[in-house]
Amino acid sequence: MTVDSVWKNCRLVTLAPGRPGLGLIDKGLVAADGGKIVFAGPAADAPTGLDAGHTVDCAGRWITPGLIDCHTHLVHGGDRAEEFELRLAGASYEELSRRGGGIASTVTATRTASEDQLVAQALPRLDALIAEGVTTIEIKSGYGLDRATESRQLRAARRLARERPIDVHKSFLGAHAMPPEAKGDTSAYIDTVCAMLPPIASEGLIDSVDAFCDNIGFSREETTRVFDTARKLGLPVRLHADQLANLHGAALAAKYGALSADHLERADEAGIAAMKASGTVAVLLPGAFYFIRETQLPPIEAIRRHGVPIAISTDCNPGSSPLTSLLLTMNMGATLFRLTVEECIAGATREAAKALGMWDCKGSLEAGKDCDLAIWDIERPAELVYRIGFNPLRARVWRGT
Amino acid sequence: MTVDSVWKNCRLVTLAPGRPGLGLIDKGLVAADGGKIVFAGPAADAPTGLDAGHTVDCAGRWITPGLIDCHTHLVHGGDRAEEFELRLAGASYEELSRRGGGIASTVTATRTASEDQLVAQALPRLDALIAEGVTTIEIKSGYGLDRATESRQLRAARRLARERPIDVHKSFLGAHAMPPEAKGDTSAYIDTVCAMLPPIASEGLIDSVDAFCDNIGFSREETTRVFDTARKLGLPVRLHADQLANLHGAALAAKYGALSADHLERADEAGIAAMKASGTVAVLLPGAFYFIRETQLPPIEAIRRHGVPIAISTDCNPGSSPLTSLLLTMNMGATLFRLTVEECIAGATREAAKALGMWDCKGSLEAGKDCDLAIWDIERPAELVYRIGFNPLRARVWRGT
Repeated sequence: MTVDSVWKNCRLVTLAPGRPGLGLIDKGLVAADGGKIVFAGPAADAPTGLDAGHTVDCAGRWITPGLIDCHTHLVHGGDRAEEFELRLAGASYEELSRRGGGIASTVTATRTASEDQLVAQALPRLDALIAEGVTTIEIKSGYGLDRATESRQLRAARRLARERPIDVHKSFLGAHAMPPEAKGDTSAYIDTVCAMLPPIASEGLIDSVDAFCDNIGFSREETTRVFDTARKLGLPVRLHADQLANLHGAALAAKYGALSADHLERADEAGIAAMKASGTVAVLLPGAFYFIRETQLPPIEAIRRHGVPIAISTDCNPGSSPLTSLLLTMNMGATLFRLTVEECIAGATREAAKALGMWDCKGSLEAGKDCDLAIWDIERPAELVYRIGFNPLRARVWRGT
Repeated sequence: MTVDSVWKNCRLVTLAPGRPGLGLIDKGLVAADGGKIVFAGPAADAPTGLDAGHTVDCAGRWITPGLIDCHTHLVHGGDRAEEFELRLAGASYEELSRRGGGIASTVTATRTASEDQLVAQALPRLDALIAEGVTTIEIKSGYGLDRATESRQLRAARRLARERPIDVHKSFLGAHAMPPEAKGDTSAYIDTVCAMLPPIASEGLIDSVDAFCDNIGFSREETTRVFDTARKLGLPVRLHADQLANLHGAALAAKYGALSADHLERADEAGIAAMKASGTVAVLLPGAFYFIRETQLPPIEAIRRHGVPIAISTDCNPGSSPLTSLLLTMNMGATLFRLTVEECIAGATREAAKALGMWDCKGSLEAGKDCDLAIWDIERPAELVYRIGFNPLRARVWRGT
């Protein structure tokens, strides 16, 4: 059997559903051809007569699937470092507002940035994630809040996938916040959002539709209108649900068969049960929990009890999680949320792939999947979660190279 | 005036005492000769006729002093990733103890490691810090708990300063924990520690003497005996003080004119006042606070009110802070302790230099000091504190090169 590449002498974290736990294999081998895995398993079970154009001796190193960051606002204009500094120095909310702080400042900076500028500003953040072995990322719009800027954000996200070896899932988040020109009329703004959706979707810029359903975001009814529009267009949905208040967003997301419901700090048991029934992934975001000094933990025991898959993600955004390390996110998942090592690693691979509707091609080391690999200088997989601010990535492979 | 090097077109975070706040300079210039800064200030004030062998155009980038990590246990054998994994999976303290977990496992791994192995294991951690612009580091012994291993740890620390361009301050921490062979007789073990001190000091391996004064460490009386021995040898002291219980360690450290008292979560006002009087620096360790899920904040308002200098550090160690990012430590200082941006940056430069007794040669951009620089791709200094898991270091200079 002739293949493009073989990685031999490796230990594997396969995440293959047929294997227990993380699907560990001690003496493993991966073979890839045409960018796809053709074999991943015990070297002893490999096809006989493997003839590879390129063979890598991994010297016993661990290989995981390439990491997947499934909830980010990576593309945005400016930053909020000045606001951060002023708040720590004791500035009041009113003072910050007067200076145009908060999400409004990011909307302004995003609206005034060109597509090239948005790409240039996002690249260092993307490169930080890539340096840790991230091979797939979700990127949301939501700082434009008008048709031109929302689509420019998504075009910038698409451009990033051309600038770097990475897959990008693009989520439309027009219903993220209120634009200043809407003057507080949320219902009218949701009409605008629903009207943006068909033309932006027709540009091929939308892989899923997201909304922020919360007491400082949009109501259940408004979210429903966005989801109904998405459904008409045949687009899957996801939801920022029950972060700051329980608006029963988890149940609403489940009702629409959402790929994921994200944050969930204040979700209730009924919502979690509904997510299980609909196959909706719980995306937990410990970086935002950390940065905003949240004290209400997500209902992790209920999520586990119902068997809802748990993904974790950076939530990279300038206001509540200026975080560009998925490894650190894994440590935060363990330290702050008491997730197990297995949950943290699966949450940044297998379950994150499900949250993006990409489980058919990503998230595990199995024949038929894209050959996205992260190769690590570690002695045991737990080190990926245990260390804080340390990157043991040895090499990264995206679609076979 | 002929000099080795000039950095021009830069913005400076000088930390110079004569300037307010962080001592910012908008259009700055640094000149160095023989590894020392000969000028750092506004370009307009630079000596006329500067003739540099090497000129760097910084294109407006910010320069800070090289960062200083003033409290680490960087040199140790093994890691505690397995214990971390087991604990998250629900293993009890007894189960972990049966498996030889806790600090005892690190003592065993350190005792069985050669000096070469200790150096090899520490280098990736050191390189992670160096990659963020750290140019001076403190490294403690304290996982040997016998004379041979304590001195081997310190020799490994000294070796690191030869392997990499960095200054290493070596602290003797024989009074860190109880070795198993001491069978709980703390008083007898402190005799052993005091007996180790003169021979290890005579090898030139001790820059300061540390102890762990706490209810799971050593008593005030035992700490006093260690400090008295240090005093006889003319060695400065520092102290792990009042982290888990208030043993009035801060006041004890102050009584001995300690360079620093570290942790301080449970220090009282009288201890803080004593530190001010003795010029003892408060070293805060938010990584350990985060990792052990501490809820008691250090008495930051009292520390501020008394004008005690605040340094921050990674506390890099395998048991309670497996952290190798001083930038992340700065973010944790702001996020978890509500330190200001100015306190976080000064805490990893100026105040950290004072905590190591190196303020005469480190910690600010001033003529006469070592030319240790960190050059950053940022728009404002606050970005160093605001971002999480992001490293904007552009270049690093140690002693002029």
